[in-house]
Amino acid sequence: MKQRVLSGMRPSGKLHLGHLHGALSNWVELQKNYECFYFVADWHALTTEYEKTDKIKQDSVDMVIDWLSVGLDPEKSTIFVQSKLLEHAELHLLLSMITPLSWLERCPTYKEQLKEIKTRDIHTYGFLGYPVLQAADILIYKADNVPVGEDQLPHLELTREIARRFNSFYGNVLIEPKALLTKTPRIPGTDGRKMSKSYNNCIYLSDTPEIISKKISSYITDPARIHATDMGHPDICGIFPLQEIYCENHNEIAENCKKGTIGCVKCKKLLAEKIIKSLEPIHKKQQEIKNNRHLINDVLHKGNQKAKVIVEKTMLEVRKSLKLWNME
Amino acid sequence: MKQRVLSGMRPSGKLHLGHLHGALSNWVELQKNYECFYFVADWHALTTEYEKTDKIKQDSVDMVIDWLSVGLDPEKSTIFVQSKLLEHAELHLLLSMITPLSWLERCPTYKEQLKEIKTRDIHTYGFLGYPVLQAADILIYKADNVPVGEDQLPHLELTREIARRFNSFYGNVLIEPKALLTKTPRIPGTDGRKMSKSYNNCIYLSDTPEIISKKISSYITDPARIHATDMGHPDICGIFPLQEIYCENHNEIAENCKKGTIGCVKCKKLLAEKIIKSLEPIHKKQQEIKNNRHLINDVLHKGNQKAKVIVEKTMLEVRKSLKLWNME
Repeated sequence: MKQRVLSGMRPSGKLHLGHLHGALSNWVELQKNYECFYFVADWHALTTEYEKTDKIKQDSVDMVIDWLSVGLDPEKSTIFVQSKLLEHAELHLLLSMITPLSWLERCPTYKEQLKEIKTRDIHTYGFLGYPVLQAADILIYKADNVPVGEDQLPHLELTREIARRFNSFYGNVLIEPKALLTKTPRIPGTDGRKMSKSYNNCIYLSDTPEIISKKISSYITDPARIHATDMGHPDICGIFPLQEIYCENHNEIAENCKKGTIGCVKCKKLLAEKIIKSLEPIHKKQQEIKNNRHLINDVLHKGNQKAKVIVEKTMLEVRKSLKLWNME
Repeated sequence: MKQRVLSGMRPSGKLHLGHLHGALSNWVELQKNYECFYFVADWHALTTEYEKTDKIKQDSVDMVIDWLSVGLDPEKSTIFVQSKLLEHAELHLLLSMITPLSWLERCPTYKEQLKEIKTRDIHTYGFLGYPVLQAADILIYKADNVPVGEDQLPHLELTREIARRFNSFYGNVLIEPKALLTKTPRIPGTDGRKMSKSYNNCIYLSDTPEIISKKISSYITDPARIHATDMGHPDICGIFPLQEIYCENHNEIAENCKKGTIGCVKCKKLLAEKIIKSLEPIHKKQQEIKNNRHLINDVLHKGNQKAKVIVEKTMLEVRKSLKLWNME
């Protein structure tokens, strides 16, 4: 039997190359060897966006369009929406009873975000409990594996600890998920910083060829290089990380850059062509999806139903182990 | 249309005179003029009893038997079990997102209990969130009124604040419940302290006449009074608060006590008779319920279904106001 993988993403709207190479390509790959569950973490969005929820719905739709367009396959994977499965909230509540406050207060990402996020008040009960909800999301599917980047390891460790504590009280019901460590290449945005919606520096999976060309040409390459014949420095070049992904001959390009035998304008043009080419099938798929009005709803409806079967089964076991009154 | 009242009780097992005069008599009375919802707060039990959950189920059954035996009428009131309505957990999660941590940390009962409860580790996320779950329990029924004792007023105020904050973000969806202040007479236990299971000083609604007589005779009345003809002091007497409830002629008794014309033995005998007499119909009802194996399950099953209709309706509105994706 295939091992089970679970991962989710907050409704981020249209996705960009950072999402693609940071998570989605990996998600698509995992479909080959694992039973995959991928979900829209719309409740999680509320931990920080509770004051303005207008965009969550459209962002969810846009995100799922992009998921399907890059190759997430509803026939292979269960794709669903967190808020449609109340059992996640039930397990979250039950796990909250056994989770020491100190585990949450000491969580490194919690402390970081309290410092970083200054535009919204996140000193809420729900934001503190973020990792408990995440634990419920994972444990309710008895996932064997969770794909994570290095920075998310503390969160997964917390999930494992919560599972262990639950099992120590109520018997061996939950499964401690293992980390599938994912190497995530750094994807720079047009301004050289990490590609991120909040920096407004992204190349989106849905950008037209014209926009992609324009955005690529706006990247900062090597500020010291004025003439195409000056010697370049791929190690500080803003587009080189993208060339490493999109241009098979990136080693050759780097050599020519260093020697001053290829200029930035040409480099950018070649890169833009490669990216545009690679996004062609994705754009085609996006168009197909948009032409099929009911598709996203149908996919998620089916996914929710498949997920429901699993969460109901787990929760029956959980309730039984807690010895609460089961009248059915 | 009748106003709606909601109240719940943690699964306390067999109930005693403290419960009867502190809450239940009032619950029964409220049935006349209100649409009442009364629930078994089994999830709440987990906030402190998570390490040992074995007794929750039987305690729930025993408690509901006593509810019905004192006159809660399933035809008039909706009697249900919290953990059977996952929507409570869903609303709890949603409210958690907007509840400032400081509101919970400053809750007077929270600080008190952290100091008082030393035998169990209650430094958990769930225990801190107790008032959020309570708010969800109340707000999901759009209860107009909640019967509370003076000491619970801060909790209800927190519920009202959470409702206001929710409405300020998402529109006028939730109703701020009003307090139905209940006068609760102090019911002393056999040792003179407040009647409480944890003090092992209770007269239970299910105690036999023999046990009641024995327990009443063990009350401390006036330690200084050695002979029946000594002058007594009803103001410090352990049974006088019970006489005030059970003996119509308690003023006369008090006079005679002060004059030394009635002795404690006689006083206790008269009181025990009154209590036994008043519990007779309750015992009869308890027996009927126990003879009808399916009754409790049937009552709660029906109650859960009635409650389900209400919570589904409220949550449809709540989800809509939050603008989360509604695929149905």
